[in-house]
Amino acid sequence: MSTIDLPLTRESIVAAHALIKPHIHTTPVLTNTTLSHLASTPQRPEALRGTPWEGQEPAKPKIRLFFKAENFQKIGAFKVRGAFHAVLRLVEEKGIEEVRRKGVVTHSSGNHAQALALAARTLSVPAHIVMPSISTPSKISGTRAQGAILHFSGSTAAEREAVVADIIKETGSTLIPPYDHPHIMLGQGTMALEFEEEVAKMLEEKPELSVHYRETRGEEEGKAKGRKGGVLDALIAPCGGGGMLSGNAIYFHSTPTLVFGAEPEFEGADDARRGVAAGERITSVKTLTIADGLRTPLGPHTWKVISDKDYVAGLYAVTEQHIKDALRLVLERMKCFVEPSAVVGLATVLFNEDFRRLVEKEAGEEGWDVGLIFSGGNTTIEAIVKMFGDVDKKEAARGEGVVGADGKEVAENVAG
Amino acid sequence: MSTIDLPLTRESIVAAHALIKPHIHTTPVLTNTTLSHLASTPQRPEALRGTPWEGQEPAKPKIRLFFKAENFQKIGAFKVRGAFHAVLRLVEEKGIEEVRRKGVVTHSSGNHAQALALAARTLSVPAHIVMPSISTPSKISGTRAQGAILHFSGSTAAEREAVVADIIKETGSTLIPPYDHPHIMLGQGTMALEFEEEVAKMLEEKPELSVHYRETRGEEEGKAKGRKGGVLDALIAPCGGGGMLSGNAIYFHSTPTLVFGAEPEFEGADDARRGVAAGERITSVKTLTIADGLRTPLGPHTWKVISDKDYVAGLYAVTEQHIKDALRLVLERMKCFVEPSAVVGLATVLFNEDFRRLVEKEAGEEGWDVGLIFSGGNTTIEAIVKMFGDVDKKEAARGEGVVGADGKEVAENVAG
Repeated sequence: MSTIDLPLTRESIVAAHALIKPHIHTTPVLTNTTLSHLASTPQRPEALRGTPWEGQEPAKPKIRLFFKAENFQKIGAFKVRGAFHAVLRLVEEKGIEEVRRKGVVTHSSGNHAQALALAARTLSVPAHIVMPSISTPSKISGTRAQGAILHFSGSTAAEREAVVADIIKETGSTLIPPYDHPHIMLGQGTMALEFEEEVAKMLEEKPELSVHYRETRGEEEGKAKGRKGGVLDALIAPCGGGGMLSGNAIYFHSTPTLVFGAEPEFEGADDARRGVAAGERITSVKTLTIADGLRTPLGPHTWKVISDKDYVAGLYAVTEQHIKDALRLVLERMKCFVEPSAVVGLATVLFNEDFRRLVEKEAGEEGWDVGLIFSGGNTTIEAIVKMFGDVDKKEAARGEGVVGADGKEVAENVAG
Repeated sequence: MSTIDLPLTRESIVAAHALIKPHIHTTPVLTNTTLSHLASTPQRPEALRGTPWEGQEPAKPKIRLFFKAENFQKIGAFKVRGAFHAVLRLVEEKGIEEVRRKGVVTHSSGNHAQALALAARTLSVPAHIVMPSISTPSKISGTRAQGAILHFSGSTAAEREAVVADIIKETGSTLIPPYDHPHIMLGQGTMALEFEEEVAKMLEEKPELSVHYRETRGEEEGKAKGRKGGVLDALIAPCGGGGMLSGNAIYFHSTPTLVFGAEPEFEGADDARRGVAAGERITSVKTLTIADGLRTPLGPHTWKVISDKDYVAGLYAVTEQHIKDALRLVLERMKCFVEPSAVVGLATVLFNEDFRRLVEKEAGEEGWDVGLIFSGGNTTIEAIVKMFGDVDKKEAARGEGVVGADGKEVAENVAG
């Protein structure tokens, strides 16, 4: 990949954003009264049964939520940011002719492969994608439809890497890794810049969206300024390989906005949290969490940022059930179609008592404006049926199926 | 209801919009490259087997789609527009004190009940909602949660109306019907005003979104102006009771924008289409179409507008399967959670050869910019499981469930 050496700073992210802006969507920021209200309502003591917080008094945080909807991004996920940034920096370094002659390569069957294929196609650069030969036909045809050149490998990391090495040897193409590279991290960080700008604009127009707004202060003083001067008091990003979390953490570093990471806990998927707690990076994860975008361990680059308390203020883990509960709320209440990985931040805000207590303790009566990132929307009706089908068969049989579980039919998203 | 006599004109809709704007969301207008491309691709001849168009050559229309996302509206559906307008006009006529003393009443267990309850609560007016006593507990508790006063009745129209009559006699409250009233129709028409304004703004910024844009014309001429001078060449609205369709038709009357209606055809749900064809309003419909918001017949007021060719240029019907196919596309590709009723317009554009031929014939090489309305998003995961669960069990078992049926993971919504 490019040898251009960009420092991991807010300034580099500003530059990255200028570079990729023509190629990406500025995704909307949404708010939702019902979900902010839910986040500000203490959990019922029964809900804490069987959790580490059983028997404790539920926390009473005050929270207003802001959602950066990257599910509306091109290819349905934030990954295009890093992919475009990496390829454009490569072009900057080696010249478009050479990159067009030699191409780019990656091994991924997920969003990164689609993102790289799109970035490459846009710049008329060949993209080699290495996929396990056991991939589903739909993934194979999908990646092919994006104009990528497909290569097949065995299922293990070693087998995949061998095929990648062969391609590089034959074509001279450059590896664009899915997350563990400064250019990818800085590219993903561009969402933080948009998020901050958009929330600032929203609060300028509607200061009452902030938890800090007080009507009695009069118009001028009523303008929300944030507890500590930041536009957002906190932001929670999903954490898989850590590209997005580290990018956000770099952007908000030494600002008043605290950055947190969220992971599934199922079968050890909370590798970042456990690694940071132990002071050592966990290099292998084997989990089948429904948040399938978050099954990866951190890499050396992302670890360096994420394990630094000055960058990431804390990491939280959530259960599969809480991910499903949050997913249901986003679909039924916010009317946004997102993938399970996208809602681990919301699950943290709603159900993780450690985070909720932190907000109560740190923010007290005033509360926090919390930013969440819907990382992507690449799931299917089949996946939804699989996730909810068995559990909900009884309910489906009983109800008419047009009103939410508690009967509230409320969509109050405000697009910024 | 109010005796204020507003003419059914564009001007009345402009006035209605000014009145309700503080209480509603200006919902976003979305575009989607994939769906516009699909609409501009001829159907495969096999897809026409078993349809009235079997054996005919598939139409070759050119179409760009614009979606007004009323699923992001308050209470998750457009119905708040009419409800707020009707109540505010009532207040204008009778004074807020009298309306607060006597209240409003309706019989509905769907979106209109929620919308009226919200409008009433906002203005501190009591809302009486008559529901069949066999309603699901979730609907009952949901309407109660909105602060409405619940009354129960038998299931027939006569039984419901008897309870309403009793309430009016006792309380002096005013009936706010769900669709068949000028104030409701004008209120729903306000979405047309926003739609037109927003599309004009979008095309000013990104003229290439229009089918009429030609890069070779240079910057000034390249600005999309519409085939006949309108911002949209055509608009298709779902048609149940006809409040929304008539509102849109009134707004665009004697503009270059043609307005069409779309209905499900299942079990005679296409009552408006059949009625207009026969020259007589169909007053009773009994259908269990999955587009459950469109199971109602037209009323005398909406019939008058909708049966007038000068207002509604045509009506089209779509099958249950086509509604499901369109629903899948909107969820998986556009990442928008909508109810089945919301996609009958998209189903028409994609699958109804009569409409597609009309576009080909009328617009030729140039094509049409077509506006569609996502009327609401009030469905549930249970309803999705019920709709797709049986059909798709095999696929769910086979695939990994994270890529669409044809493997494309594309979200290219552009919010205006």
